[in-house]
Amino acid sequence: MASELTVLSGLHRTIEELPLVDQHAHGVTGRDLSRAAFEELITEAHGPAPDWMTPFDSQLGHAILRHCAPVLGLDAFISPEEYLARRARLGVVAVNRLLLGAAGAGHYLIETGYRADEVVGPSGMAELAAVPVDEVVRLEAVAEQVAASGVSAAGFAGRFAEALGERIRTARALKSIVAYRHGLDLDPDPPSPAEVTEAAGRWLAAGGRLADPVLLRHLIWTALETGLPLQFHTGIGDPDLDLRRADPLLLRGLIERTQPAGVPLVLLHCYPFHRHAGYLAHAYPHVFFDLGLAVHHTGAGSAAVVAESLEIAPFAKIMFSSDGWGPAELHFLGAELWRRAMTRVLGGFVTDGEWSAGQAVRVATMIGATNARRLYRLGGAA
Amino acid sequence: MASELTVLSGLHRTIEELPLVDQHAHGVTGRDLSRAAFEELITEAHGPAPDWMTPFDSQLGHAILRHCAPVLGLDAFISPEEYLARRARLGVVAVNRLLLGAAGAGHYLIETGYRADEVVGPSGMAELAAVPVDEVVRLEAVAEQVAASGVSAAGFAGRFAEALGERIRTARALKSIVAYRHGLDLDPDPPSPAEVTEAAGRWLAAGGRLADPVLLRHLIWTALETGLPLQFHTGIGDPDLDLRRADPLLLRGLIERTQPAGVPLVLLHCYPFHRHAGYLAHAYPHVFFDLGLAVHHTGAGSAAVVAESLEIAPFAKIMFSSDGWGPAELHFLGAELWRRAMTRVLGGFVTDGEWSAGQAVRVATMIGATNARRLYRLGGAA
Amino acid sequence: MASELTVLSGLHRTIEELPLVDQHAHGVTGRDLSRAAFEELITEAHGPAPDWMTPFDSQLGHAILRHCAPVLGLDAFISPEEYLARRARLGVVAVNRLLLGAAGAGHYLIETGYRADEVVGPSGMAELAAVPVDEVVRLEAVAEQVAASGVSAAGFAGRFAEALGERIRTARALKSIVAYRHGLDLDPDPPSPAEVTEAAGRWLAAGGRLADPVLLRHLIWTALETGLPLQFHTGIGDPDLDLRRADPLLLRGLIERTQPAGVPLVLLHCYPFHRHAGYLAHAYPHVFFDLGLAVHHTGAGSAAVVAESLEIAPFAKIMFSSDGWGPAELHFLGAELWRRAMTRVLGGFVTDGEWSAGQAVRVATMIGATNARRLYRLGGAA
Repeated sequence: MASELTVLSGLHRTIEELPLVDQHAHGVTGRDLSRAAFEELITEAHGPAPDWMTPFDSQLGHAILRHCAPVLGLDAFISPEEYLARRARLGVVAVNRLLLGAAGAGHYLIETGYRADEVVGPSGMAELAAVPVDEVVRLEAVAEQVAASGVSAAGFAGRFAEALGERIRTARALKSIVAYRHGLDLDPDPPSPAEVTEAAGRWLAAGGRLADPVLLRHLIWTALETGLPLQFHTGIGDPDLDLRRADPLLLRGLIERTQPAGVPLVLLHCYPFHRHAGYLAHAYPHVFFDLGLAVHHTGAGSAAVVAESLEIAPFAKIMFSSDGWGPAELHFLGAELWRRAMTRVLGGFVTDGEWSAGQAVRVATMIGATNARRLYRLGGAA
Repeated sequence: MASELTVLSGLHRTIEELPLVDQHAHGVTGRDLSRAAFEELITEAHGPAPDWMTPFDSQLGHAILRHCAPVLGLDAFISPEEYLARRARLGVVAVNRLLLGAAGAGHYLIETGYRADEVVGPSGMAELAAVPVDEVVRLEAVAEQVAASGVSAAGFAGRFAEALGERIRTARALKSIVAYRHGLDLDPDPPSPAEVTEAAGRWLAAGGRLADPVLLRHLIWTALETGLPLQFHTGIGDPDLDLRRADPLLLRGLIERTQPAGVPLVLLHCYPFHRHAGYLAHAYPHVFFDLGLAVHHTGAGSAAVVAESLEIAPFAKIMFSSDGWGPAELHFLGAELWRRAMTRVLGGFVTDGEWSAGQAVRVATMIGATNARRLYRLGGAA
Repeated sequence: MASELTVLSGLHRTIEELPLVDQHAHGVTGRDLSRAAFEELITEAHGPAPDWMTPFDSQLGHAILRHCAPVLGLDAFISPEEYLARRARLGVVAVNRLLLGAAGAGHYLIETGYRADEVVGPSGMAELAAVPVDEVVRLEAVAEQVAASGVSAAGFAGRFAEALGERIRTARALKSIVAYRHGLDLDPDPPSPAEVTEAAGRWLAAGGRLADPVLLRHLIWTALETGLPLQFHTGIGDPDLDLRRADPLLLRGLIERTQPAGVPLVLLHCYPFHRHAGYLAHAYPHVFFDLGLAVHHTGAGSAAVVAESLEIAPFAKIMFSSDGWGPAELHFLGAELWRRAMTRVLGGFVTDGEWSAGQAVRVATMIGATNARRLYRLGGAA
């Protein structure tokens, strides 16, 4: 029993101190937040919550009061009011530094295509977190910038390729949000140049955000030509997406067609389809996945989700991300809850007599850091 | 350790004594039941079980022998024969009083549209359980009564609206079983009056139960105009339904169209799609859900299902129901197993250091009673 | 506490000593295996693993080092190199005898239609395991042998029925891999003789493996006429299948049409759709299922999967199989991990006060042996 406790405490310390690679996050907000603004940022629901409820009454809300409060110098389990008052008193810069410091990431990959003007950019994140930061480029944002800059239908494909080429000079990965704009149930083959021109003509004439399936496929196939790992939003997100059409199993056709070239495909979040993602990571050599925002949203329940992610995927194919956007609480909780869940799940394997402590440490290190260092060529211990 | 036990025992006592709002149940049977009849009522399968098995060999069967037997004055874990002999000796009225008393609900919402002549009605339930009872009206049953009373195709819509208006004078909610009659994959828009008349003509000529998708949609949209919460059967049920078409994610179109008006939509049962339901409750302000009959059917395994229901849904959007129909064992076990599962799951959050005991008590109270009291305007502590 | 330990240790011993009926396995390899060959056989992925990973870094890999190593006379948790060196030193025959002996099955049903020339046949398995072995005949393999032997389109149906009739003289069950060849989303009705002849003409002219949906349906309906239990691959498998189309819920149409005749349908593996399989086993009297290869692939996580399989299915409808093919590690781990998972899950029900120890022993015995003995008429204690 003494030795069991020693083993678990060693595993706990190793995971606690692991410099995570957060392979998919966004910037933290640089603004002080009202209660209403804060509450809107800790849920995927759109708009203010009904007046008979608060988003603090959720796993994520409870996790903030439990784990973030002490980082800000409060007791755990204070009220939302006390928490937000303390947050306001400290000011956003101090809050960001405290929470990003406590997250203990060793490297961030920051996706810059979502409401980028409302959050700090990669260099700001590097300064706040005091660790290296690299960029993940969102394909649809680049295409929409190309469209906004003025381009003809015939010129779209060329200009997009050029813009993407420029952006990836300093990027480590690309990202597709086709799950939001159409669904993952898309024709897996690349469109022809004529189809692209025709679709670009329609889109440029109609305006609005990019939701044409032909163009979304074209973006993906252009991205694949760069050879950079391509991240896909899958699973839960805000109500802009149809969850049924965000099941990563829908990507099978694309996965099969891209297997010969072998460009890494990284499935993000995946919940509640994370077992599906685990199967794809098992079956195809170039498929990877993480649990992303599912960890901070499931809070005290996240250990069960993490356990399911460890069922059939090879351990070299699983990664960590927080998917934090806005409040630094999300970046911190992504890391903190992942560490706690991994300690509980892997520690359970050890105390059940199924794994050795050394295996548990090794797998935690792979998933938390070395898999992503190798995949994104980040250097450092891999 | 002493304090941990104290905390858990306090949580246990609070949950044990909570006067639950059972937001979706049916009447108990008023007849004494043969073994064959009892066995048919503790499974969703149709017809008698094959002679090489008994429905007692299931989680629900084990739960009856474990938890109902002591309520009837027997030791736990006696045989099915002993249990049924005792049940027969006591007689159905005494059994109903004992089990409904032990269920400890503070309020029942009774859905009256399923084989209503075989079970006691709302007033009978109020008398047996000695607590207030309100009605939930099944849309399809009302429509079928209208048809049976003689109506023309052109007159159907008006007569249905009239009949529904009459029924809701004393009802707290409406219920759709479109999952059984068609599937949740239905056109989310309301049909035109001409389409309704045409569909009514076809149905009235053909006879039989209502399964026309145009009319089923019309019932739903008529229901929505009343403003009463609308319950939907989703997930498991008897083999009359196609489980693939009972996934609540299929309701997304309807959910989106009804969000502006905000009429509450309540997803019942949901298993094995309860994580999907949790997502919908998270993403849309007017969506609620419960686990219904999944709790008594999963028995000793229900804590895992309850834990999954607590992953991403805001706690203000989750409710309790037993979905009991027939044997009062189902009403009792719905409550008893829910209490045990909640104590185990929330108690685990507390002993893991993730939640405070106060948070656990508060969330149990919300889910077990106050959310439903607010939603259905039942009065009482909310 | 003393009595709780006594109870669990009794349950542990009973499950440990239970002579399992492995209702779906294949032969073990008779060849010594290189590291590369061994690694390809412990994953469902095709081809060699990328050089930056090893399939040993998985639940299955860890389970081999934990549980198989001691069977070969090594300490648990040695390295893959040490394990494979020991395996090579012992030689394949000794390894097979040791692992099959340690598996402790009392009866094997061996499916002979998959790469049969690479593994030992039923009689070889009977000799190695020193227990009775019966055969499961794969429909598609029989049809492909008929085609290879030379047959006309018009003669195909008759020749297939004849060949199947010959094969089932000594077989206990049939097996369909329509999940691989088409998907479970097939027209549930039998094709007409004219359709079969036409489809056979197309297939015989084109050659290749049997993937025509008309013929696949014809095989199933011919199989059903024999009255033998019909096993279906469902859920995970190698990337040859589209997992979305391997959801057993897709079989509902066929299940409904076959219910009157009542030929047993046995859903294999099912993961991650095992809750769907549990529902089908609950709702339909002639549906059975197992977890097959999901147990050895989920390793230390298999208790959670086993627990989910015990949620809503009647206990008389659940069975055990290893789905081992090739390395005898798979046959052994299927059994060993199932025993450990059942002990943990059922033992948990007992220590939680939900089940009696007698119930736990009885259910383990049903699932591990007696259900299959009855279904396949194997004789022995049932």
